[in-house]
Amino acid sequence: MVRFIKKYQEKVGLPPGTLVHVGHERSDEPEISVLVYNEQTLEERKVKTGDLDSCFPIGDSTDVVWINIDGVHRTDVIEFVGKKLAVHPLVLADIVNTRQRPKVEDHENLLFIVLKMIYYSETASETISEQVSMIVGRNFVISFQERKEDLFDPVRKRIRTSSGRIRKMGSDYLAYALMDTIVDNYFVILERIGENIEEIEDELLQNPTQDTLQSIHHQKREMITLRRSVWPLREVIGTLERADIKLLQDLNRIYFRDIYDHTIQVIDTIETSRDMLSGMLEIYLSSVSNRMNTVMKVLTIIATIFMPLTFIAGVYGMNFANMPELEWNYGYPLVLLVMAGIGFTMLIYFKHRKWI
Amino acid sequence: MVRFIKKYQEKVGLPPGTLVHVGHERSDEPEISVLVYNEQTLEERKVKTGDLDSCFPIGDSTDVVWINIDGVHRTDVIEFVGKKLAVHPLVLADIVNTRQRPKVEDHENLLFIVLKMIYYSETASETISEQVSMIVGRNFVISFQERKEDLFDPVRKRIRTSSGRIRKMGSDYLAYALMDTIVDNYFVILERIGENIEEIEDELLQNPTQDTLQSIHHQKREMITLRRSVWPLREVIGTLERADIKLLQDLNRIYFRDIYDHTIQVIDTIETSRDMLSGMLEIYLSSVSNRMNTVMKVLTIIATIFMPLTFIAGVYGMNFANMPELEWNYGYPLVLLVMAGIGFTMLIYFKHRKWI
Amino acid sequence: MVRFIKKYQEKVGLPPGTLVHVGHERSDEPEISVLVYNEQTLEERKVKTGDLDSCFPIGDSTDVVWINIDGVHRTDVIEFVGKKLAVHPLVLADIVNTRQRPKVEDHENLLFIVLKMIYYSETASETISEQVSMIVGRNFVISFQERKEDLFDPVRKRIRTSSGRIRKMGSDYLAYALMDTIVDNYFVILERIGENIEEIEDELLQNPTQDTLQSIHHQKREMITLRRSVWPLREVIGTLERADIKLLQDLNRIYFRDIYDHTIQVIDTIETSRDMLSGMLEIYLSSVSNRMNTVMKVLTIIATIFMPLTFIAGVYGMNFANMPELEWNYGYPLVLLVMAGIGFTMLIYFKHRKWI
Amino acid sequence: MVRFIKKYQEKVGLPPGTLVHVGHERSDEPEISVLVYNEQTLEERKVKTGDLDSCFPIGDSTDVVWINIDGVHRTDVIEFVGKKLAVHPLVLADIVNTRQRPKVEDHENLLFIVLKMIYYSETASETISEQVSMIVGRNFVISFQERKEDLFDPVRKRIRTSSGRIRKMGSDYLAYALMDTIVDNYFVILERIGENIEEIEDELLQNPTQDTLQSIHHQKREMITLRRSVWPLREVIGTLERADIKLLQDLNRIYFRDIYDHTIQVIDTIETSRDMLSGMLEIYLSSVSNRMNTVMKVLTIIATIFMPLTFIAGVYGMNFANMPELEWNYGYPLVLLVMAGIGFTMLIYFKHRKWI
Amino acid sequence: MVRFIKKYQEKVGLPPGTLVHVGHERSDEPEISVLVYNEQTLEERKVKTGDLDSCFPIGDSTDVVWINIDGVHRTDVIEFVGKKLAVHPLVLADIVNTRQRPKVEDHENLLFIVLKMIYYSETASETISEQVSMIVGRNFVISFQERKEDLFDPVRKRIRTSSGRIRKMGSDYLAYALMDTIVDNYFVILERIGENIEEIEDELLQNPTQDTLQSIHHQKREMITLRRSVWPLREVIGTLERADIKLLQDLNRIYFRDIYDHTIQVIDTIETSRDMLSGMLEIYLSSVSNRMNTVMKVLTIIATIFMPLTFIAGVYGMNFANMPELEWNYGYPLVLLVMAGIGFTMLIYFKHRKWI
Repeated sequence: MVRFIKKYQEKVGLPPGTLVHVGHERSDEPEISVLVYNEQTLEERKVKTGDLDSCFPIGDSTDVVWINIDGVHRTDVIEFVGKKLAVHPLVLADIVNTRQRPKVEDHENLLFIVLKMIYYSETASETISEQVSMIVGRNFVISFQERKEDLFDPVRKRIRTSSGRIRKMGSDYLAYALMDTIVDNYFVILERIGENIEEIEDELLQNPTQDTLQSIHHQKREMITLRRSVWPLREVIGTLERADIKLLQDLNRIYFRDIYDHTIQVIDTIETSRDMLSGMLEIYLSSVSNRMNTVMKVLTIIATIFMPLTFIAGVYGMNFANMPELEWNYGYPLVLLVMAGIGFTMLIYFKHRKWI
Repeated sequence: MVRFIKKYQEKVGLPPGTLVHVGHERSDEPEISVLVYNEQTLEERKVKTGDLDSCFPIGDSTDVVWINIDGVHRTDVIEFVGKKLAVHPLVLADIVNTRQRPKVEDHENLLFIVLKMIYYSETASETISEQVSMIVGRNFVISFQERKEDLFDPVRKRIRTSSGRIRKMGSDYLAYALMDTIVDNYFVILERIGENIEEIEDELLQNPTQDTLQSIHHQKREMITLRRSVWPLREVIGTLERADIKLLQDLNRIYFRDIYDHTIQVIDTIETSRDMLSGMLEIYLSSVSNRMNTVMKVLTIIATIFMPLTFIAGVYGMNFANMPELEWNYGYPLVLLVMAGIGFTMLIYFKHRKWI
Repeated sequence: MVRFIKKYQEKVGLPPGTLVHVGHERSDEPEISVLVYNEQTLEERKVKTGDLDSCFPIGDSTDVVWINIDGVHRTDVIEFVGKKLAVHPLVLADIVNTRQRPKVEDHENLLFIVLKMIYYSETASETISEQVSMIVGRNFVISFQERKEDLFDPVRKRIRTSSGRIRKMGSDYLAYALMDTIVDNYFVILERIGENIEEIEDELLQNPTQDTLQSIHHQKREMITLRRSVWPLREVIGTLERADIKLLQDLNRIYFRDIYDHTIQVIDTIETSRDMLSGMLEIYLSSVSNRMNTVMKVLTIIATIFMPLTFIAGVYGMNFANMPELEWNYGYPLVLLVMAGIGFTMLIYFKHRKWI
Repeated sequence: MVRFIKKYQEKVGLPPGTLVHVGHERSDEPEISVLVYNEQTLEERKVKTGDLDSCFPIGDSTDVVWINIDGVHRTDVIEFVGKKLAVHPLVLADIVNTRQRPKVEDHENLLFIVLKMIYYSETASETISEQVSMIVGRNFVISFQERKEDLFDPVRKRIRTSSGRIRKMGSDYLAYALMDTIVDNYFVILERIGENIEEIEDELLQNPTQDTLQSIHHQKREMITLRRSVWPLREVIGTLERADIKLLQDLNRIYFRDIYDHTIQVIDTIETSRDMLSGMLEIYLSSVSNRMNTVMKVLTIIATIFMPLTFIAGVYGMNFANMPELEWNYGYPLVLLVMAGIGFTMLIYFKHRKWI
Repeated sequence: MVRFIKKYQEKVGLPPGTLVHVGHERSDEPEISVLVYNEQTLEERKVKTGDLDSCFPIGDSTDVVWINIDGVHRTDVIEFVGKKLAVHPLVLADIVNTRQRPKVEDHENLLFIVLKMIYYSETASETISEQVSMIVGRNFVISFQERKEDLFDPVRKRIRTSSGRIRKMGSDYLAYALMDTIVDNYFVILERIGENIEEIEDELLQNPTQDTLQSIHHQKREMITLRRSVWPLREVIGTLERADIKLLQDLNRIYFRDIYDHTIQVIDTIETSRDMLSGMLEIYLSSVSNRMNTVMKVLTIIATIFMPLTFIAGVYGMNFANMPELEWNYGYPLVLLVMAGIGFTMLIYFKHRKWI
């Protein structure tokens, strides 16, 4: 979380709009894929960063153009795209500084959207939070991803197979489809966390250890990350649904309402999980107290039984010349009997107090 | 709670509006019951899923038609109904994905309402949260339930016996009656929880165990589920009461205000119960501390009395050649007296400190 | 609190507006008192439930008529009044179901107000929360109480003795006077609680026991009940003060502002008391820890002093043939000296660590 | 806090506007001082309660008249003033019932302001919360204080010496100056509390005792009192700054904005101090736990070292006829060596676990 | 925090607008630097406090004039500037009283902004919170700093090197650039705190001590300071972005939106860090409990094993004349065997209970 603001120091004092890449470090070439489609035709190709020029200008035809750029570390590429589309330098700065909060900006003829995509990367075997930015125009969407993960593949497949209505709709529907994919991934992550929570819960009931506590806190922290991404997302999509944005067609508004509902559902599940984790923490802490109690009881029972007995043995171990009991014939068995009596009394007492 | 989002993974990437049933799994036939009534006449029948065609089109007469479909796992049935009523595919997707939050959507000539019905099922002997969706039209209500529980039976009975004003009113009043039944069931559940809380409270005062803690947390969790259903419900009914919805007649608005009041009352009781459960948790935790304190006191009293005595016995058990006290005639009884003195002093000290 | 919803189960499924009495159970006759007054004249009488007919219709004269009905368990009586005044059945249902939240409803020519009166009943020797409903018309107030307590007596007296301006004002001022009495009673209850809190506080400083904890929680719970009644009351009175209600004359608005201020004051005191109770809980819990600490210190001091000494005594109690110290002439006093030395060293150490 | 509502019981049932003094009890004569000033002239005098008549009517000249009444226990005096100014009886009731919340009421030609002045009284050597009410008219301010403390003296001095702009401005500026003095006194109190907090903090780091806890709670409680006064004050001054109040000249609005800023600053400091006190409580509680830990470690170390040793000594203290070791020549020193070995091993073990 | 209000006492009673310096005490000369620039030319000079006259009046040309005054302790200097610009005395009082909350005031032809700059001073080697005030006019910015730190140097450099658009824009852009520098410094501080948090976290997992707790609380407190500065800052910048302020050109609004986004990001990180610190506190506290548990277990194991053994040894150390076992040939080894048996049984029991 806190690492989010790392490397910021070097930005201090630079003029606004200076492109400084902050985030996941990479040195390879960004991958650029271009899809041009309408209801009838579909054209798909990969473009090298050097040939990016070939994509512009984006014509005025009824085709929808989707350019996906996998990597924002090459600030020159971003700058080139920015110049071609004539977007404000601050927008470009937001694209390369991947520590943004989800937000939407309406620049009249362009819509600028920043989102966080959270997913479990099998390759890195960890949960990754990646910034996805989109510039949405009348007939194009340009999306920027930090990493080369094929999370938008289902959308691509739907375009290719022409399943659903995606080929019939405009660029706003494409933007919606991408955002929908992102929100759907939140559910997948929540499902993972949900499973973890159930595991921890079982552990908690059977054998809670310090590790259980660590796991609870680990999940809590994942929740914090998720919350950080989803709460602003809600605002973003709420704005898209309600605000009077020229680029969004009224008949597509219902789709944004749908994502909005999903976002609320994600938030709901997050808050519920947080409540559950807090409850689990309370159970953990009280189980620690309870175990302490058990330990103390064992100690007290042992001490309370054997201390008086040892004392009696000590008394008859004294070397006084004149100790008549020692000479008695039945002194020894009598003392043993007395000791057994004391021991039993103690046990009954503890039984009575429900300590054993 | 968290399980709510299970099976979501497989939905990722599908086009919006694809009907994927998420929720209570069933494989039997859904049950469809149709009621057509007006002030004078009443017609009631069961329809097979195959004969659903016979119900449509729903005429324009002054009759109110109520179709209740018990089971949303047969997506083909839902799709069929959807086509007949020309509702948006996203609405149908919401009906079959029973992980929705309560909500209301005003589609001009149709009203789409999603609610959560929570009840204690005697057959399953557990508390069940089931999604109920309704499509309300000018002269019809189509309700979708997840399970075959006859929770709407009282409404059916009122229609049959023509008790109250239900036969004289339109489809909006029928929708109200169904929602009223759902909210009334919340009170029944709250009553159950209330009884449990009282039981736990008694346990807490008499003999709190680790199980008591588990029960407290169990109730807390049920509260979380309930809250999750009721808070959005409040919004839903608030919208129905206040918003300018064409399908709702003004003279029926007072009925929605009535449910609204009930919902607030439910929320109130939930919040109060939560406060009480938190208080009970505090009492539990402090009773654990108190018991620990008692245990420690017993240990300390025993140790404080017998350690000095055992030490004295030990001293006179030493084998030094030259220990004059050992030869004294009254050495032994004197030592015993001293020991008794020390013991009593300790006891008085503990009495004084109110440890015993 | 939770009992509030008891008996609700039997209501499930009944048509709305069915009168089912929920609340304090009684079987005796409700008491009905009628006051008719204007600036000059005053007429007062008791009416039997059978003769209620004689009170209606309430004329159109400039007299103010106040009918107070002590008991809402006789639903037929309530129904009769309802019919005479032509109020909506839901209003009547709210009167007999005494589990309502405080609320105000503006029915054009009638004002329906539900309040909670909380007072300490000497007869029942417990704090009682009773529902008071009022139907306020242009020239009448009909008030419904659950129990026969003469809490409105001061108002009756003021009317009789014509003290203050009550005889000169209309029915809205009478409603105000009744509400003022209710709010004043909150202060009395708060005073009682305040005294309890002070007592608990003294206990806490002198000798906190498990009972102290119980008392703290008991007060906390009373606070919860009070809050439940007062928070919605604030809304109710705020509505009366601000909303454009025809039945309330503008010149009487200042009186409602006055009650509003009082309500805020009550809320303020409740919140402050809650904060204080939380603080007291913290003190209690930490005093438990502190006492545990003291107990442990005593144990540790005793053990740390006597364990080494007992060990030394044990060493010289060994029966080895060849233990030269045992033969020394001053062996015994030397060992005693060493033991004393060790004991003192330990005491100084504990003194130094401030344990004693 | 809770005492605030004492004596309320006797008010129950009295007609509204009845003057009942609630608050600091006094029996002496209230002190009345009158200041009449304009830019050129200044007239200052003390008035007896009997001669109050001489102050009225307050002329229509351009002079500003400031009447300060030190004592609200003489309800007849308050009533007299009320009649002369023709204010509503409820306003007078608010003046004598000094348990009001800070508030402002705009009565067209009069402004009624209630504030809480909090200061450390050297004479009473405690923090005092006193109610100050003001009736502000076009050319006069009548202020009511509960006690004879000369807290408004600096304002009087400024008027006398004509420092600042006070002599040139109207009655609204005088009201502002009085309120400014009250708010400035909050800062003085906060400074005192701040010093106390620092002291407690030092204590906490050096030697936290049960007293430290008491001090923390004492400060917390003072914060609660302060909060109770300042939060509503914020609303009051916010209203004065923003609302359209005829009596306040627009050019003086900036001064109220200034007090508003100060009030926010006071609230800020209060909230910060509360956070700090909570943090200090946490440190206190965990230091109690830590000390317990230390105590337990000492006990465990002692017991773990001496229990095995005492056992060994006990073994060789047994009186079996046939114990070959006892006859060995080096039996005794060998056993001592073994004992030393065990002791050292234990010490090394504890060193290793960082217990010592 | 609390020290913020120190020295306030002496201000009580002074007329508003009296300049009393409250804050960092200095006695040296304030440093005044003047920059006059437009797109083509740049003039830079240092001015002595005596020669300040030479800067005024600020001409009406298209040049932007930036006067930076390093030190607000010389109230005469501030007063001089105030007179020249004809600003309200309350504004000047706010500049010299460096305990203000961040705020913005729109005085028609002037904009008065108060901010808190927080940075880690290498010279003082501590985190410093310094007040920065700005008076922004149509073609000038006058900035006031408390200390001589060259935090605005990057802006100066950008003006000198004409990098970015700063030379082409007006005084509002300069104000923006200064505020941007301040907000960027928050990120630097957050980065420092983030590193500290990570360090504490490592400590927490490896060897948590009382110092760890102190560090957690220290960071928490820094968070409180930061919050105090940033929350009002958000309002300030929100106002600048949204309000209709004449002095800010519409085309520069996007820059303020950019800072606004950054401020939200800072707040977000602060809140996240607070959540993390709370989590760390919980881990710390539970690790204390866990260690206590471990200590107790060691004690109990030792006591439970050796107390019975010592008791047996004690029994056979008794001096009864008639103890047949003592005479047995194998009595001694038998007893030793029994003892070993008991010891092993205990160990197996503890193993079974997972204590070892």
